[in-house]
Amino acid sequence: MSRPSYSEIVASLPSVTPFVGPETIERQQGQPFRVRIGANESAFGVSPRAAAAMSEAARGVAWYCDPEGYELRAELARMHGVDIDNVTLGAGIDDLLGLIVRMYMNPGDAVAASLGCYPTFVYHVNGFGGRLETVPYRSDRNDLMALTDLAAKRKARILYLSNPDNPTGSYYGSNAIADLLERVPPDCLFILDEAYLDFVPTDTILPFDVDDPRLIRVRTFSKAHGMAGARVGYAIAHKEIIRTFDKVRLHFGVSLVAQVGALASLRDPQFVASVVKAVEAGRRDYVKLTEDAGISALPSQTNFVAFDFGTGERAEAVMNALIERGVFLRKPAAPGLDRLVRVTVGTPEDRAIFSELFRDVMKGM
Amino acid sequence: MSRPSYSEIVASLPSVTPFVGPETIERQQGQPFRVRIGANESAFGVSPRAAAAMSEAARGVAWYCDPEGYELRAELARMHGVDIDNVTLGAGIDDLLGLIVRMYMNPGDAVAASLGCYPTFVYHVNGFGGRLETVPYRSDRNDLMALTDLAAKRKARILYLSNPDNPTGSYYGSNAIADLLERVPPDCLFILDEAYLDFVPTDTILPFDVDDPRLIRVRTFSKAHGMAGARVGYAIAHKEIIRTFDKVRLHFGVSLVAQVGALASLRDPQFVASVVKAVEAGRRDYVKLTEDAGISALPSQTNFVAFDFGTGERAEAVMNALIERGVFLRKPAAPGLDRLVRVTVGTPEDRAIFSELFRDVMKGM
Repeated sequence: MSRPSYSEIVASLPSVTPFVGPETIERQQGQPFRVRIGANESAFGVSPRAAAAMSEAARGVAWYCDPEGYELRAELARMHGVDIDNVTLGAGIDDLLGLIVRMYMNPGDAVAASLGCYPTFVYHVNGFGGRLETVPYRSDRNDLMALTDLAAKRKARILYLSNPDNPTGSYYGSNAIADLLERVPPDCLFILDEAYLDFVPTDTILPFDVDDPRLIRVRTFSKAHGMAGARVGYAIAHKEIIRTFDKVRLHFGVSLVAQVGALASLRDPQFVASVVKAVEAGRRDYVKLTEDAGISALPSQTNFVAFDFGTGERAEAVMNALIERGVFLRKPAAPGLDRLVRVTVGTPEDRAIFSELFRDVMKGM
Repeated sequence: MSRPSYSEIVASLPSVTPFVGPETIERQQGQPFRVRIGANESAFGVSPRAAAAMSEAARGVAWYCDPEGYELRAELARMHGVDIDNVTLGAGIDDLLGLIVRMYMNPGDAVAASLGCYPTFVYHVNGFGGRLETVPYRSDRNDLMALTDLAAKRKARILYLSNPDNPTGSYYGSNAIADLLERVPPDCLFILDEAYLDFVPTDTILPFDVDDPRLIRVRTFSKAHGMAGARVGYAIAHKEIIRTFDKVRLHFGVSLVAQVGALASLRDPQFVASVVKAVEAGRRDYVKLTEDAGISALPSQTNFVAFDFGTGERAEAVMNALIERGVFLRKPAAPGLDRLVRVTVGTPEDRAIFSELFRDVMKGM
């Protein structure tokens, strides 16, 4: 039977989803996971104040959200010392990355990133018909010099960097990022994905320069704020760029519940500070665990630790054995990174269960 | 200063937002609206069961949603007598319309719709570089024959129809839609936007035919279910089309809170039935109000009534006078429809306040 044709770009896309959810694996395995430490969610939950605000908001959910997200944007602007016109909201960084790719990239254009970077960014570049150009990680860190060289050489429209990095956990401070910005070609948009920035010391963070028309910084409430299931993130950039988001974004796309919850969470900084502290303790536990097992772990400034199993085969074997035993985990697949398994910091109880299972699995390897 | 260029399509877009939120007008006017009956939200709120489920979900919002939305899709499939593979979720119909436009339309392609149709659909067609071809409404209804003729003549990739219609409130039953489907060109995708379908008698609804590769039907929890601020809707179509959504949709885009709330609302059909009944009473009140004022109202099968002021000038004057007095309202701007003001059915209390203000304004006209 004849049928309407898909658009040229969509017709050419493979059936690949960026991430399989743990619920899917649970349905396949016929049992729930005991420990969920595979998606860098926050095991420490959401601020009780934010939860209360969202519960209240749920009763008023018959009303559309404020499409301008005024109150949340105003609070973010105040906190970051920028103007409200320098802030836009999105339904998580995933949403914002799609919009940015659409805003800056024509089909066929080159985009530069590290080989093995955040899969949803790659999904958007492919999804809008772009051409991803990559350089490998170097010593398990993004190779900043190679990235800007690549962007210049390939005339990339966009350069993407996750800092702190996912999936390695590595981090560059303000000086390195400022140096990189000096080298970004003037006609290349630089996306600085700061999803994990809540976990780094504040004095290492590059100050905002919203006069730079080459830079969009994106952040999220999904990590330290413990709101992954609410879908809310934001971008900070030159106000002309923020106005351009208004030409493509879903104006009612950030739910009322998410907006209210994010605002309440911002006003509970003690909660986020306590999460950051708990995560630091968890990272130390994981480092000790790897040392005891005779393997290494990459230094991390995030809410996860990349365990280094030396080879992709061994990493895969250990991960699969742990998944079978009820631990939800993920690992990078890119060459050079495939020897890693990314372990999210769980609660002390999660870590106790995981440690026991991990030691057990490692004995058999 | 040189800056990165926008993509060709985005560079060509005007700065137009589909809808200005009532919050923006409130900020401009310096005072809140007394009655909010401008955005076809449900004044009758959300099911208490759904609100309770969302409150509970808010505490667990640190976890990502199920990217497959399995439970909600399974329940929708069961209800509608289709397979789970015939259902996909989106963050409201707005999200789904953007995805469908992207899936079927290349830049420069024609899309057919009524002149004055849902502005967010037009926003997406423009946003992805399409060319909107329109026919006017005929006797304040979508002109079904003219729409399919237009689609054939312009070789449209997509034909869009809202049924029941926004902004007129008019509705075609299953026979008329089946006839229309016979005439849709085989290479044209037909989007049947059924946002307001909960308000029509079930025996007038076209049964699902998920073998038809030309048809995508979209529905929402924003209207009768009272969940506009939660952002959740769904599409029902051929399973091959549903698989193609997976190539472009935001996999974690429908929040945990929204998924849980929608499922609970589906399981509370008495609540939705009570809303539908309350809305019918409200429509009758509005018809009486217009008769008393010596104007007419369009017949409506939705949760709003289009008041007919005869001329665009008069409609605009009455609406602006009401907005000044604290009533949030919207009106269509398209030629032929601009004499209408769209009044959402409010609660009996809302309607009492509105009626008084309306009579007062009409006296002065």
